[in-house]
Amino acid sequence: MTATDFRFHVEARDGAARVGNIRTGRGVIRTPAFMPVGTAATVKAVPPEAVRKAGADILLGNTYHLMLRPGAERVAGLGGLHKFMNWPHPILTDSGGFQVMSLASLRKITEEGVAFRSHHDGSAHAMSPERSIEIQRLLDSDIAMQLDECVALPASREETARAMQLSLRWARRSKAAFEASAPPPGRALFGIVQGGTEQDLRQESAQGLIEIGFPGYALGGLAVGEPQAVMFEVIAATTPHLPQERPRYLMGVGKPADIVGAVARGIDMFDCVIPTRSGRNGQAFTRQGAVNIRNAKYADEPRPLDDKCRCPACRDYSAAYIHHLVRSSEILGATLMTAHNLTYYQDLMAGLRTAIRRGQLAAFVADFETGAADY
Amino acid sequence: MTATDFRFHVEARDGAARVGNIRTGRGVIRTPAFMPVGTAATVKAVPPEAVRKAGADILLGNTYHLMLRPGAERVAGLGGLHKFMNWPHPILTDSGGFQVMSLASLRKITEEGVAFRSHHDGSAHAMSPERSIEIQRLLDSDIAMQLDECVALPASREETARAMQLSLRWARRSKAAFEASAPPPGRALFGIVQGGTEQDLRQESAQGLIEIGFPGYALGGLAVGEPQAVMFEVIAATTPHLPQERPRYLMGVGKPADIVGAVARGIDMFDCVIPTRSGRNGQAFTRQGAVNIRNAKYADEPRPLDDKCRCPACRDYSAAYIHHLVRSSEILGATLMTAHNLTYYQDLMAGLRTAIRRGQLAAFVADFETGAADY
Repeated sequence: MTATDFRFHVEARDGAARVGNIRTGRGVIRTPAFMPVGTAATVKAVPPEAVRKAGADILLGNTYHLMLRPGAERVAGLGGLHKFMNWPHPILTDSGGFQVMSLASLRKITEEGVAFRSHHDGSAHAMSPERSIEIQRLLDSDIAMQLDECVALPASREETARAMQLSLRWARRSKAAFEASAPPPGRALFGIVQGGTEQDLRQESAQGLIEIGFPGYALGGLAVGEPQAVMFEVIAATTPHLPQERPRYLMGVGKPADIVGAVARGIDMFDCVIPTRSGRNGQAFTRQGAVNIRNAKYADEPRPLDDKCRCPACRDYSAAYIHHLVRSSEILGATLMTAHNLTYYQDLMAGLRTAIRRGQLAAFVADFETGAADY
Repeated sequence: MTATDFRFHVEARDGAARVGNIRTGRGVIRTPAFMPVGTAATVKAVPPEAVRKAGADILLGNTYHLMLRPGAERVAGLGGLHKFMNWPHPILTDSGGFQVMSLASLRKITEEGVAFRSHHDGSAHAMSPERSIEIQRLLDSDIAMQLDECVALPASREETARAMQLSLRWARRSKAAFEASAPPPGRALFGIVQGGTEQDLRQESAQGLIEIGFPGYALGGLAVGEPQAVMFEVIAATTPHLPQERPRYLMGVGKPADIVGAVARGIDMFDCVIPTRSGRNGQAFTRQGAVNIRNAKYADEPRPLDDKCRCPACRDYSAAYIHHLVRSSEILGATLMTAHNLTYYQDLMAGLRTAIRRGQLAAFVADFETGAADY
């Protein structure tokens, strides 16, 4: 690993979609990229070797969870998050803001930041843009995110605008704190576009962030219950207002079809718990769609979950065996299902990258919808 | 894998202890051997590759669990237990009798066999010596066990004698059924010595089994609550009455100190859920004794669980990380703890084999008790 400046290179375009790579101090991220979620310093149910073998170049760590347990200062004392969890490749950390809003109790938001109580033990904590950056530096993440405010939906235009404006002011403070923290080369802080489903607010947010200046821009506050078509509209209306030469990250998305549609609209990075959480619950993603492995029809199925899949679950086991493990609540069932879904997601990203490079994304999207896509 | 006759070769002796190997149709088992327990066609929480890397030559499958779920005929239809669970190495299956006695409800024992109801769904089932052998053949195990009756302790001498005599009659029927099943070369059926803590009954049981003739002999009905000293006495009083040229298997044992003491008294094979179950519960076995990784003193411990251990948990992670995973109920914690404990057990067996080969078992046992043994 050589320290390097953080940079994004677009290799090819197809319509609004781009294929490229992000160079970081800890390695290259091929885009469009899917980042598995390692909430509590582990991608649930699988060892990091399996995440890597699935094809992931980067994973996401949750600042909120890690600050509460085991604690950011503790992780720093043990050599940082990469060493702690044995993942030497890039890590993106969120700001913690989204989980504070969705998990913590007794939240109180002020201009300064947000006070809250832990969902574990009720202990009191405070998060400001500066503290979020400090925690992310203690974790030693490669890509940090600004603290923002995600309003709960439905929200009035007034409330959405207020939160977007607050997020812009927090973006400026986050950048100042990040620069003051003297990050090593090859690290980056991304700004987050807010504004709900109000296209003019999204544009105002993007413009404000660009004035501050970030090496990457995220779209926050989407996939929070709105229809897919609305999400696609917001993406399509926002990405043209973001710099072509900066990566765009759609936070918390999504299902395979969400990712395919967002890539076609110019998104470069994704994270989501769906492949891991669904896997633990018995849902497997396959080239023919999502299936529930608990279904009795798999009890005697000698073929793998997906005969085009290269993952350990499909390489070494019948669907009947996975069915048995999941029905028996065996841990290995969660492990194999997770490895499968992560591999599926990474193979989908690789298929998208190849299609964009060949200028055949439209055909890929059409074939994806009928289960005929080659990836 | 070449089919071969089943045979046991003693390479060296040290007092009552022996080091050797068992050749089966699916590979060689180094003895003294520890067999991890793969109850429901999986060694809980770890993939089979991890069991193999830990050093296991053979694992145990539970007939009772497998006959109920997924079902022996189903496993046979899918190519047998080895293919089903992706473990191409030897598998020993128990008869199912012990779990029927300990898990099933509404048990009724007759000369013919035992009728019971499933602990899953209350469905009615019957197990006879012949059906147990049939199930074990459907699973395609390498070493099958006769059906026996384990009396619940405490039991009268009369009750113990009755169960032992019934087990002898079942041994004869088991052997006849096994031979009638035309097993492929390299498979074996073991008889089981019963008789509780009554040494004369144990000797009578051993003599009766030898008259029937088996390629291996197990000691059943031990480690069921009696003090370790009593178990050791029964072992020491029984092994001299078993053939030197046949492997001896102490069923369901045990803690590391139990295994060390039993090896010194002439036992060649062991199985136990302790390393796997304890691992999932946060107990790690180390060369300095068992430790509870949940203990707060590990929260900031940068060293591994056991710095002499070669397992993935000790090679790649701090004790602090394992502590964090286990306290957070993360699946990876169970996986790493299990891999560690299985590796510890296999390294202990390797240490015992080396000590016997060198004629230094007494010194090894003394060093083991002070935590100074080299293995």
